Amino acid sequence: MIPVPETSLPRVIVIGGGFAGVKLVKNLKKLPIQVVLFDRNNYHTFQPLLYQVATAGLEPDSIADPLRKQLELMKYFYFRMGEVYSVDTKLKVIDTEIGQLNYDYLVIATGSKTNYFGNQSIMDNAFPLKQIPQALDLRSHILQNFEAATITTDPVEMKSRMNIAIVGGGPTGVEVAGALGELKKNVLPDDYPELDFDQMHITLLEGADKLLGGMSASSSNRALKYLKKFDVEVKLNTLVKSYDGNVAKLNVGDDIVTHTLIWAAGVEGNFPKGLPETAISHGRISVDHFNQVKDTENVFAIGDIALMQDEIHPKGHPMLAPVAIQQGDLLAKNLKRLIKKQPLLPFKYKDKGSMATIGRNKAVVDLPGNLRFGGFFAWLIWMFVHLISIIGFRNRIIVFSNWVWNYFTYDKGTRLIIRKFIPNNQKSTK
Amino acid sequence: MIPVPETSLPRVIVIGGGFAGVKLVKNLKKLPIQVVLFDRNNYHTFQPLLYQVATAGLEPDSIADPLRKQLELMKYFYFRMGEVYSVDTKLKVIDTEIGQLNYDYLVIATGSKTNYFGNQSIMDNAFPLKQIPQALDLRSHILQNFEAATITTDPVEMKSRMNIAIVGGGPTGVEVAGALGELKKNVLPDDYPELDFDQMHITLLEGADKLLGGMSASSSNRALKYLKKFDVEVKLNTLVKSYDGNVAKLNVGDDIVTHTLIWAAGVEGNFPKGLPETAISHGRISVDHFNQVKDTENVFAIGDIALMQDEIHPKGHPMLAPVAIQQGDLLAKNLKRLIKKQPLLPFKYKDKGSMATIGRNKAVVDLPGNLRFGGFFAWLIWMFVHLISIIGFRNRIIVFSNWVWNYFTYDKGTRLIIRKFIPNNQKSTK
Repeated sequence: MIPVPETSLPRVIVIGGGFAGVKLVKNLKKLPIQVVLFDRNNYHTFQPLLYQVATAGLEPDSIADPLRKQLELMKYFYFRMGEVYSVDTKLKVIDTEIGQLNYDYLVIATGSKTNYFGNQSIMDNAFPLKQIPQALDLRSHILQNFEAATITTDPVEMKSRMNIAIVGGGPTGVEVAGALGELKKNVLPDDYPELDFDQMHITLLEGADKLLGGMSASSSNRALKYLKKFDVEVKLNTLVKSYDGNVAKLNVGDDIVTHTLIWAAGVEGNFPKGLPETAISHGRISVDHFNQVKDTENVFAIGDIALMQDEIHPKGHPMLAPVAIQQGDLLAKNLKRLIKKQPLLPFKYKDKGSMATIGRNKAVVDLPGNLRFGGFFAWLIWMFVHLISIIGFRNRIIVFSNWVWNYFTYDKGTRLIIRKFIPNNQKSTK
Repeated sequence: MIPVPETSLPRVIVIGGGFAGVKLVKNLKKLPIQVVLFDRNNYHTFQPLLYQVATAGLEPDSIADPLRKQLELMKYFYFRMGEVYSVDTKLKVIDTEIGQLNYDYLVIATGSKTNYFGNQSIMDNAFPLKQIPQALDLRSHILQNFEAATITTDPVEMKSRMNIAIVGGGPTGVEVAGALGELKKNVLPDDYPELDFDQMHITLLEGADKLLGGMSASSSNRALKYLKKFDVEVKLNTLVKSYDGNVAKLNVGDDIVTHTLIWAAGVEGNFPKGLPETAISHGRISVDHFNQVKDTENVFAIGDIALMQDEIHPKGHPMLAPVAIQQGDLLAKNLKRLIKKQPLLPFKYKDKGSMATIGRNKAVVDLPGNLRFGGFFAWLIWMFVHLISIIGFRNRIIVFSNWVWNYFTYDKGTRLIIRKFIPNNQKSTK
C-alpha cells in the first residue's frame, strides 16, 4: 500500500493532472474529502503550446507547472508521482508504479496518447508530440540534423536532413508545420549560412480532403493558403504507408525523403487496465451524462478519455481542453452533491469555438454562431485565449514575454541541443 | 576532411565556445582570416549560474546561448558541432567526432572538467556540475528523491533521500549549498507538507581548513556564518573516501547517508590528445606569456586550460572567467599582430576580485585593494556583475526577471522532473 494517511473522510483518487484532473482537484478543496492525485509526471503540461517547445519558441518551464505547487496549501490533498497500471473496480483499489491504494471514489482523467494505428515502422521512427520530453527530443533532433547537414557532401543526405514531413492536418499538425515554416524563413538561414534553404522542404500530409477537419470550410481553406505563404507544401488525401527513418512511402505519389517525420495524425484513449470490457468503446471509456463509467460504482471518467454519447455528439465530444475543463468543473459539483445525497447534474457542453494559429500574424478562428475569420485579428485572439488558459501566473508572464521577444526580433531563443551527458570515461576515444 | 570552404585566407581553428573562445572569435570578425569554431555543444554555457539550473531557479535557456546565433553575420566564420579528439601539431590537423580538418593557427580553449582524483566510486555515483545536462540530471534526481521520500515507510531511506551532501568548499560548492538551503527553507516544505524537514540535512564538506580558499579570511568566515543561517552544516578538514550512492565514507567522523552527493571538489584541464608531452604540466597546457603552447608552432591555449606561470602566479592563473576573457581579448589582438608581422603583446592579468553568493541577501565580495565585504550590498554587486557578464541580451532579461520573481514570491519556478520519455510499447506493464 502507498502510504497516505487513513482518515474517516472519503478518499477520492484522481488519475491524471491534465486540464480535467487539475480543474476538478482545485474545485474539491473545500469539501470534506481526502484527494490523492496521481500523475506519471510531477507537472501539468499545457499541451496546446507543446509545438512551440518543439520549434524552439518556448522552454518547457513556460508551458508546464509543478502539480505540487498548484495544489499547495490544500488540506487533505496528496500528490503521488507514478503511472497507474490498473484499477480493480470491485475491490476499489488501483495498482501503480509505486504500489497500491484503495479508494471510495475514482476519477479517471488520463487523457489521450498518440495513435499509430498499429503501424510499427511509424511507431519506431516517427516523432510524436504529446509530452514535454518528446518535444525536447524533436527539437534536438531537428537541430542536430542541421548540424549534420553542414558536414555532409552527399546531396541526397543533405536534403533528407533538412526536410521535415508532418503527418496529420489537425490543429497540432497545422501549427507545427507553420512554426517550422517560420523557422525556415526567419531563423535557420541566419544560423546556417552555408546551407541552401531552397533545398529544404516542409510537407504536411493529411489523409482527408481538407485541413482542420473539425473546423469550417472557410477556416480550412484559409489555413491552406497561409501555410503556402510559410512555404509548407500540403498534400491532402495522402496517407503514409511506412517510414524507416529516412524514406516515407505514401499511398499516392513520390516517396518523401526525410530524417524527420512528425506524427500528429491521431490520438487514442490512454486508460489503465482492469475496467469492465463493457465500459470500453472506440478506445475510450463509456460514461453517462454524469461522467459515471458504465458498469462500475463510484468510478468517473472526464476529459479526452471519456466517451459521452448523445444526440448532438453521437461519437462523443471532441477531445479538446474546453470539454475537459467543463467536465472537471461539473464533476467537482457532482461529487459535492453525491456526498450530500443530492441528485447529480448532467453535462452540457458549451462550445467555445475552435482555432489554430499558422504563424506570425496568421490564425483561423471559428466561433459559435457561424462567426469565422482569419488573419491578424484571429491571431491576436488566439494568443489572448492561450495566454489566459495557461495555468500559473508565472507561466503567463514568461510565455507573453517570449512571444513579444520572438515577434520583434524575428528570432527564437531556445535553439539548444540538449543531449544526454556521457561521462568522459564512457566515451569512445577513437 | 570536414567540408569547410578552402580559401586563400589563413584558417584559425578555435576549440571550445566558453568564455575564452567566444571572446576571441567575436574579436576576430574584422580580420582577413577564416575562423572555424568547434564545440561539442551548439551553445555557450554561462557556468557561474549552472548551480541555479540545478536548484530549480533557472531554466537552461537562461544561461546558455546558441553559438551560431552569437556569431551570425560574421563573414568567413564557420561553426562545427563535434568533440575534438586529438591534434597533430606537426601536420597541422585536428581529428574530431565529425572528421579531420587542417589549420594554419590553432587555439585550444577547451576549459576544464570535473576532477575525481581517480576515485572510481565517486566518479560512478556522485553528481558533477559542469554542464547543462548534468545540472538538469541533478535537479530531476533531487526532486525524484523527494517524491520517493513521500512513499517510503523506512525512516533511514527517507532521510537518505532527503539529505544532500556537497563536496568542495569553493564558489560552486558554497553557492549550491546555499541555494539548497533556500529550497529547504522556502520551497520544499510547501511542496511536500507530508515530510518532516527537520530530518533533512545539507552538509558541505571541505578538505582544507577554510571555505572559499581563493578568498580572504574574512569572506571565508562570513560564508561559513551565512551558510549556518541557511541551515547548511559545514565540515572542514574533511575528505570523502568513497561513495556507493547511499553512504559517503569520510576520513574522519560518521558516515553520511544520502542519495545525493554533489561533487564540486576540483577541476582539471580538458585537452585533446596529441600535444607534445613537454607541453603538458599539472594537467594543463604550458604556455608562454603570449599564450603560445610550448614546443609547438602557431598553437595557442587560452582560458582554464592554459598554464601560464610567472613570478606572481607560480602555479598559473586562477581558473576563472575573467582570466579567460582577458586572454581571449589579447589573443585576438596578437593574431592580428602576427598577421601584420608585428611583435606580440604579453598577457597581464587584471585581477577584478572574486565573489560568491550564499543565498537570499547574502554574498561575499573581495575586491582588489583589500576591499572586503558581505551581506546585502555584496549580494547586489554579485547579481549586477553576473547579469552584465551573461552573454546575450535576451538571457539578461530572462535571468533578471526570474530573479525578481523568485525573490518576491520566495519561490523557484522550474521544479520539473524531466525524465527520458519511454514509449508505451517499451514499458514494463507489470
